[in-house]
Amino acid sequence: MSSKRSGVSLTEDEMPRKWYNILPDLPEELPKPKDPEEGESRVEMLPKVMINECLGQEFSEARWIDIPDEIMDLFIQAGRPRQLFRAKRLEQVLKTPAKLYYKAEFYSPTGSHKVNTALAQAYYAKKAGFERLTTETGAGQWGTALAYAASLAGLETKIFWVRAVHDWKVARKNFMRLYGGDVRASPSNSTKVGRELLKENSNHPGSLGIAVSEGMEDALDDPQAVYCLGSVLNHVLLHQTIIGLETKKQFEKLDEYPDMVISCLGGGSNFGGFAIPFLGDAIKGKKIHFIAAQTDVSPNLQGEYRYDFADHGELTPMLKMYTLGHKTEMKPIMGDGLRYHAAAPIISLLRKHGYIDTIAYPADEKYVFDKARTFIQSEGFLPAPESAFSVACAIDQAIECKRRNEEKVIAFNISGHGFMDMEGYTEVLGLQ
Amino acid sequence: MSSKRSGVSLTEDEMPRKWYNILPDLPEELPKPKDPEEGESRVEMLPKVMINECLGQEFSEARWIDIPDEIMDLFIQAGRPRQLFRAKRLEQVLKTPAKLYYKAEFYSPTGSHKVNTALAQAYYAKKAGFERLTTETGAGQWGTALAYAASLAGLETKIFWVRAVHDWKVARKNFMRLYGGDVRASPSNSTKVGRELLKENSNHPGSLGIAVSEGMEDALDDPQAVYCLGSVLNHVLLHQTIIGLETKKQFEKLDEYPDMVISCLGGGSNFGGFAIPFLGDAIKGKKIHFIAAQTDVSPNLQGEYRYDFADHGELTPMLKMYTLGHKTEMKPIMGDGLRYHAAAPIISLLRKHGYIDTIAYPADEKYVFDKARTFIQSEGFLPAPESAFSVACAIDQAIECKRRNEEKVIAFNISGHGFMDMEGYTEVLGLQ
Repeated sequence: MSSKRSGVSLTEDEMPRKWYNILPDLPEELPKPKDPEEGESRVEMLPKVMINECLGQEFSEARWIDIPDEIMDLFIQAGRPRQLFRAKRLEQVLKTPAKLYYKAEFYSPTGSHKVNTALAQAYYAKKAGFERLTTETGAGQWGTALAYAASLAGLETKIFWVRAVHDWKVARKNFMRLYGGDVRASPSNSTKVGRELLKENSNHPGSLGIAVSEGMEDALDDPQAVYCLGSVLNHVLLHQTIIGLETKKQFEKLDEYPDMVISCLGGGSNFGGFAIPFLGDAIKGKKIHFIAAQTDVSPNLQGEYRYDFADHGELTPMLKMYTLGHKTEMKPIMGDGLRYHAAAPIISLLRKHGYIDTIAYPADEKYVFDKARTFIQSEGFLPAPESAFSVACAIDQAIECKRRNEEKVIAFNISGHGFMDMEGYTEVLGLQ
Repeated sequence: MSSKRSGVSLTEDEMPRKWYNILPDLPEELPKPKDPEEGESRVEMLPKVMINECLGQEFSEARWIDIPDEIMDLFIQAGRPRQLFRAKRLEQVLKTPAKLYYKAEFYSPTGSHKVNTALAQAYYAKKAGFERLTTETGAGQWGTALAYAASLAGLETKIFWVRAVHDWKVARKNFMRLYGGDVRASPSNSTKVGRELLKENSNHPGSLGIAVSEGMEDALDDPQAVYCLGSVLNHVLLHQTIIGLETKKQFEKLDEYPDMVISCLGGGSNFGGFAIPFLGDAIKGKKIHFIAAQTDVSPNLQGEYRYDFADHGELTPMLKMYTLGHKTEMKPIMGDGLRYHAAAPIISLLRKHGYIDTIAYPADEKYVFDKARTFIQSEGFLPAPESAFSVACAIDQAIECKRRNEEKVIAFNISGHGFMDMEGYTEVLGLQ
C-alpha cells in the first residue's frame, strides 16, 4: 500500500479480533464507582439495570478481550473495516507540510461510530434473555444506533431523547421509528423523574443527564428491560477501541505512525475508541500528542477532577471524572452530542496524568463549521456537527505545522456524517 | 473469504483498473444518435457542449478503457472499493432458500453511485481547461455528486433542479451549496427554454427533460462552461461499470456467481453500471436473469423502441431508446430519480434482444417502501427511495424462490442512501 494513495482499506481477515482494555495499563488504578454519602446504594443497583457481560467488562483486568464471532459478523455487516483516508487535497489547500489522515467512521449504517457498542450491547442483552432495551440520547446518534442494533437482534427499544433536540430533528426521529424504536421526548410522562420536571416546566428542554435518569428508571421498573449507555463507561470505550485498533493496522500498512491523535469529545466514546490504542503506546513511552476538541458550552476536561454523578437525577453511582457538575445547565448547540457535563473516567484519569490536551471552541460554532466547510470542499465528506470539531482541530494543528514548518503525521477521527444535520450547517453558515 | 460472513471487502490493490465498454460486445451495433428531420443539427452541436474525452468514450470500440491514475485515486477517496454484503438476516426473515447479496453504493460521500461518473467527468473537464460545469438534476443525487466532484477539481457548477423536487429537498439543496454549487429551480429565468415555460406557468413544476435543456443551453452560451449528464449516455454507463466490475471480483472471492441481477432503473446509470459487466457474460451465453425495477409513473422499458429526444426542449440528438415520449407528463414521486421518459440506448438495445426484464411498481410507493422497511429492520441500512425499488424487487424474487424452493443467488444494487429523504418514508409509511 503506497502512502501516495488517498485511502487504506483492510479486508475482513485483517480486522482486529480482540478489543483492547486499557485498564491494566493505566498509570494508576482507575478509581472505582462509589455511592453518595446518603440514600440507597447505586453501586448495588447496577446489576439490576445493566447487562451482566458489560458489567464484567467494566471492571475486567484482561488486557485483550475476544470479540465474539457473532459481534465480528455484525461489525462486518455494519460496514467494518472502515477506511483510513489521507487528506491530500486538504493538505494542498492548507499548504501544510503535515500529513493528515482521517478515519471514516461516518460510513456507518446509522451515521456514526455509536453502532460499534450498540451492536455489542444488543447482542449481549439478547443472549442474556432480555426483550427490551432502554436508553437516552442527546444528538440522536446513540438512540438511532441502539434502535438499529435492537432491530437486528430482535429486541424492542425505548429511547428518551432530550426534548430540545428531539423536537427539531424530525427526520432522525422517524429514522428511529423506522427501526421500530419507541421514541419519547425527555423529560417524559413515563417516568417519575420526568413527571416531576414536567410539573415544574411543562416545556422543559431536558438534558442528557435527565434522559439517562429516565432510561435507568424505565429499566428498573421492568424485569424484561435492560439499560444501555452510549458513552462514558469503560465497557463502551472498550467496544469502541475497534476504531483505533483498525486505524493502527492501517498506519502499519502505510509504515507511518501518528504524531498527533485528535477527535471531538463529549462523554468520550469516540475519542476513547479512536485514541485508547494509541494511548496504550503513549503510556509505554511513545511520544504522541492527544487533543480532545470540545465546545465552550461544556468544556468538561477543563472542569474539576472529582467524584460526580453521570446523570441529572443522581440514579448512577458517582464516578471520578473531570466534571462541570451534574446539575450544570448548558445551552443547546448544533453539535449536541458534545454537550455533556463530564468526561469518561478513563479519559479523565489520563488527562490528569497529562496525556490528553483539550481545546474548547466557541459556542456559536461558526469557527468550527467554517473549517468544516474547507474540509467538505476539499475532501468531499460532510461531517456530523460533532465531528466538525475534530476536523477544525486537525486543520488548526495543520496550520500550526505550516507556521513551524513541521512534517507531523496527524490522525483524526470523523465519528459521524451530517446528512441528517444540514439544518445546523444551514443556520450557522447562513446558506439559505 | 468464507461465504458465511456478512461482507466482502476488496483492497485498493484489488480494484478494477479498467472500465468495461460493452459496445463491441453488443448483439448488434448500437444505433447512432441522429438529427430530427427539421432544424439545426444536434449531432454537430455535441462537441460544443460536451467534454471531448467523454464524447470519444461515447463511441469507443475498445472493450477495456484504462481508468486514469488520478480518477482511480478519486474513486478511492470517494470510498471505493465498496463492500458487497450477504443479506443473511433478511434471508432468515423471508425464510427463503435464495442467497441475497447487495452492493453498498450507498456508502458514498454524497449519498449515491452518481459520484463515479461525476468524478470522471469533472476530472476530464478540468484537464480540458473548462472552468464551469452545468447540469440538470431530478432527485438531486446527480446534482450533489457533480457539485462535489467540481469542488474537488476546483471547478464551478450550475445545477438546474426540477422545481417540484427542488422546493421540498431543502437539506439537499443546502448540501449542494455547501460544495459551492449554484442551484436553480428549473424551469428558471436564466435560460430561454426556462423563461418560455415560466411565461405559460410561473409555478411550472419542471421535469428532468426540461432541466436537461436548460443545462445544455447554459453551456452553449458560455465557452468556459461544459455540460455534464448524469445518466443515459454510453460514457456515463461506462464510468459506472466500476460498480459491477468490483461486484464480480467480490463474487469470485466468494466462489459464487449470481443467477439474478437486479437494480432500479430511471435513465439507466446505476442499473447499467451494476449489470453491464454481467450482461457481457450473458451475451457470451451465461444464463443470468436481469430485472430492472421501475415505477408505474415512468415504466420506460415498457414503452416503444424508437428514436426520441433525451430532453423536453429537443436540444439533444435523437437516441434509439425505449421511450414513453419526451413530452410525456409524469407525476412526481418520492423516488424521483426513476422518473424519466426513456432508458439508456445500451440498456434499451439489450432489452430489445430479450436480456432484460422489467417490473413497474405502483406509483403510491407504499408497496415498495413497506418492503424497504423489512430490509431496514433486518439489514439495518436505509436505502434511498429509488434504491427501495431495487430492494423490493430482490425481496419479491427471494419470496418467489421460496415458493419454488430454488436456491438462487440474487445480486442487487443499493445505489444510494435515504438519510436526506426521510420525508418520503415518513409520508408514505405514515410514521409521524
